[in-house]
Order: sequence, then C-alpha cells, then structure tokens
Amino acid sequence: MLLIALEFLGLVAFAASGALAAVRARLDVFGVIVLGLTTALGGGIIRDVLLGITPPTSLRNWPYLAVCAATALIVFAFHPQVARLRRAVLLADALGLGVFATAGTTVALNEGATVYAACLIGMTSGIGGGAVRDLLLREIPLVLRKEIYAVAALTGAVCVGVGHALRLPAGPVTVVAAAAVVTIRVVSLWRQWNAPVARPPEEGTS
Amino acid sequence: MLLIALEFLGLVAFAASGALAAVRARLDVFGVIVLGLTTALGGGIIRDVLLGITPPTSLRNWPYLAVCAATALIVFAFHPQVARLRRAVLLADALGLGVFATAGTTVALNEGATVYAACLIGMTSGIGGGAVRDLLLREIPLVLRKEIYAVAALTGAVCVGVGHALRLPAGPVTVVAAAAVVTIRVVSLWRQWNAPVARPPEEGTS
Amino acid sequence: MLLIALEFLGLVAFAASGALAAVRARLDVFGVIVLGLTTALGGGIIRDVLLGITPPTSLRNWPYLAVCAATALIVFAFHPQVARLRRAVLLADALGLGVFATAGTTVALNEGATVYAACLIGMTSGIGGGAVRDLLLREIPLVLRKEIYAVAALTGAVCVGVGHALRLPAGPVTVVAAAAVVTIRVVSLWRQWNAPVARPPEEGTS
Repeated sequence: MLLIALEFLGLVAFAASGALAAVRARLDVFGVIVLGLTTALGGGIIRDVLLGITPPTSLRNWPYLAVCAATALIVFAFHPQVARLRRAVLLADALGLGVFATAGTTVALNEGATVYAACLIGMTSGIGGGAVRDLLLREIPLVLRKEIYAVAALTGAVCVGVGHALRLPAGPVTVVAAAAVVTIRVVSLWRQWNAPVARPPEEGTS
Repeated sequence: MLLIALEFLGLVAFAASGALAAVRARLDVFGVIVLGLTTALGGGIIRDVLLGITPPTSLRNWPYLAVCAATALIVFAFHPQVARLRRAVLLADALGLGVFATAGTTVALNEGATVYAACLIGMTSGIGGGAVRDLLLREIPLVLRKEIYAVAALTGAVCVGVGHALRLPAGPVTVVAAAAVVTIRVVSLWRQWNAPVARPPEEGTS
Repeated sequence: MLLIALEFLGLVAFAASGALAAVRARLDVFGVIVLGLTTALGGGIIRDVLLGITPPTSLRNWPYLAVCAATALIVFAFHPQVARLRRAVLLADALGLGVFATAGTTVALNEGATVYAACLIGMTSGIGGGAVRDLLLREIPLVLRKEIYAVAALTGAVCVGVGHALRLPAGPVTVVAAAAVVTIRVVSLWRQWNAPVARPPEEGTS
C-alpha cells in the first residue's frame, strides 16, 4: 500500500521532470507527454524486464499511464508560472530518483531476488528513467555528469537492502531511504559537490 | 498468415527507412546494413522482450534478417535513383509505423495480454524501431518532434484493440488500422500539421 | 571454467574501454565508474534479457561488478601514464568485442538457443556494451562507423556456432574465434580498412 503510494509519487515527480525538460527543449504537446511518460515509466519497465515480469506492471494498469500523462499535461499548461525550469527539473528528478531507487529495491526483494541483485536493480530502476530522458534529448545523462547521482541512488537501495536483511519493517525503512536519496541530491546540488575529475592527459597524446 | 505478410511489409519499410537514413548520414555499407536491421528488428525485439518471448522471434527465424539485409543492400546500391531521400525516409517510416503498431498489438493479444497492455505494446513496437534509428544517428527521435507520430501509432493500436474487443475479424481490422496510421502520418506531413508548442518561458528564468 | 575466465577478461577489457572513453570525455570519477560498468555489463545484460535469464547473471554475482569497478578505478588513477587514449580505447574495445561475441554465443547455445539465434545473440552481446558506451557519450556508435566492426563480431559468433554444429571441443574453438575477432579488428584499424560508402546523392535532392 505504502509502496504503491510511493511509486505514484515517483511517477508524478519523474513525469514532471521529463515534461519540464521537454518544455525547455521546445517540444510540442505530444513530445512533452511522450517524454513525461518515458521518463516516468522507463525505470520501472527496465526493472520489470530485468526481473522477468512481463508484460511490465505499468503497461498492465491504466492508472500508471493516466497519472503520468495528466502530470505532463499540467506541466505543459502551467509551466510559465514555473520559474527556473532547470532547477525544477533537477528537484523533480531527485524526488523520482529517491522513490524509484528504494521502491525498485523493494519490488525486486518481493520477487525473490537476492539483496545484492535487488540493490543493483533498484539503483538501475531509479537511474533508468532520467537516463532515457537525457538520451532522447541528446544530453549526456545526469548520471555521468558532475553531481553525485548514481551514489545517491545506490545509497537508497542499500539502505532498503540492509533493512531487509535486518528484518526491519519495510515501510519506514523505504521512506527514510528515499528521503536520504533526495537529501543527498539536493545538498549536493546546493553545495555544488563535485567528485574529482581525472587530470588531463598530457597534451598531444589523446 | 496475413499477420506474417504484414510483418514482412513492415520489415521492408523500416529496413528501407533505416538504410536511407544511414545513406544520408554517409555511413558505409556495413553501417547501412546495421542501421537497416536495427530499425526493422528493433520494434519487434522490444515487443518480444516486453511480452517475455525469448529469444525474440526475429532472432530465431532467418527470413526476418535476410529480408532486412537484402532491403538495406538494395537501398545502398540504388539510392542515387531515389531522389528526395528525406521524404523517402519519412514515407517508409510511416508504412513501418502503421504495420508494426497494428501487428504488434495483434501479437500481444495472441500472447494473452489485456487489450490495454496490447495497445501500449503495439504502439511501442511501432515507435521503437524508428526511435532506435534516430538515437543511433544522434537525432532527436521523430516521436518527440513536431509531427503527429505517437498519436498515429496509438490510433492504429487502439483500432485493433477495439476490433478485438468487439470480436471483429482480425485480418481486415488490422489492414484498415494500418492504413489509418499511414494516412494520418502522410496527411500530417503533407499539411504540416503541428501540435501546439508551449509558450516560451519568461526570459532569463529557464 | 574457461568460459568464466574469458568472460572476466572481456569484462576487464570493456570496463577499461568505457573508463578510458569517460576520462577522455572529462567525466568525474563516478562517471568513469558508471561508464566502465555500463560498457562492461551492458552486452551481457542485453544477452540475458534476450535469452530470458532474469535477473541477469552479472546482477546476481558480485565479482562481475567488483572487477569492473576496480578496473575503472585503476584506469582513472593511472591513465596519465597511458598515452594515446584513443588507441587504447579501440584496443580494449577489440578485445572485449571478441570475448563477448564468442562467450555470448556459447552462453546462448548452453541455454538451448538454435545455432542461428545463438550467433545473433552472441554478436549483439559483443556489440551491445560499446554501443551503450558511445550512445551515453553522444557519439555515433563504432558499430555504425567506418571500420569493420559488426562483421568482426559476427565472424567470431559464427565460428563458435559452426564449431558447435560440428561438435568440436567448445574451449579451443572459443579461444580461436575470439582471437580471430581481435585480429580482424586490429588489422582493420592498422590498415585502415574501410568499407565502401554510397556515392553521394545528386545535389539538391536530399
């Protein structure tokens, strides 16, 4: 129940992040809906394919798609009021990342995956939607760029996995883990935490 | 039987669209074949993975690959006679879209998917090949750009789904639905139908 | 046993190629690790999804990920000593291509796929990782560009398939086939073999 509520929160967040990115890229209303849907459903579909759940859950239950399309339409209609679109995309993305990384881990555990596999699948589930969004818009995915991203998702997934191994109650653990992911992302954006970049190779050799 | 004939028509159309796009991008003969194959087989492989059909049909039956490779080679050899490559890519793409969106829906229904899931999987099956082609060539996928695209595919898939629910004969319904998709795409290209674009956000805020 | 040794050799090679490409693209240390992992694990995950092995092998066994991450970190730390990064990426890529194309074919045969399907899945398994790497870095994938690439992978896969059909011992056949792929790639890079490009279309018509 809580899992479903969390998943829908993540859907709305990722659908908004995809739709906002599409608006920024000057796509038309259908492009905005398609990108909202792809971003929101992408991670979950990748998760289901990796777990062998076919057809994927989100393609069998209409509320998934309806919620995402409605979110994208609302973003399309009201975005001029939404100032600072870049920041809004990043915040919505952080929320979606946290929810999907932790909910994805829980789903994988429920399907009988080992804790190790569940953490990886959860992380992939969180990262997947945003990566698809960035690829479709021909941007280098966030997950490869400067800010802490995959590490945040992995942290959330590992929290859920450890909680499962310690037999802690799944609900509170998932909420705390998702909040941890969002916090890591927001703080890293705010403080502009960056990881080290490799020294440039010697000139003329690469 | 009709389903198979339709599917091969779609393969030829998508293989030609991929190969023409590759020729336009100045790829060599192997690049042309690979892009023709990827475009033609991509949608069906995505469909089979979503339905849990493994290994995918097109990787188990050699005629699929042979038809696509032959089409790509013919395009490579004779393309100078084909004037207006951009238009040719779009027309071949419209035909492939129509055929795969409707045939994909039928395959999903035959596999026992619900009408709702079958329509979505059919749409994805139609859109998939072209999206892969555009991604590999680093273009923003057609499905996100100006013209009616996902809506056309969805229309075809929904026609097949409604026909199935009403127990109409599958063959004629599929042909009519595919023709509807092609018509929508061609008319929208010809009339340059565009969907609304969001008003630009206030300057300096995005 | 030999299969596992080969697979880890391929993992190291592809992880290094992804990490080197990420260093060249000035990604930070996490981007380098993520791209190393994606490149090394991508082909195998695609193979497992096509064969219906869920969750994919590399997500269930921690040594896969540990080896790739360690390789990426070593590349990140020591790359300034590695002169000529472009060449290093291509060499590591050739090794990974050979190993994954042949090991992928063997895995597919072991899973009961037909020789035909196994060759295609093996080829895809070899090509997949590098294609994901290039897509994430927004480059046109190697497989579509000038050098013999898909043909090399297919050659290796077909060698394994033919060896299987002739009931030759799997181990030596796989090693010879992988060596053949690497040789084809290296020689084609060294001699700058290129396949024919289509004549440009008449001016003003495309």
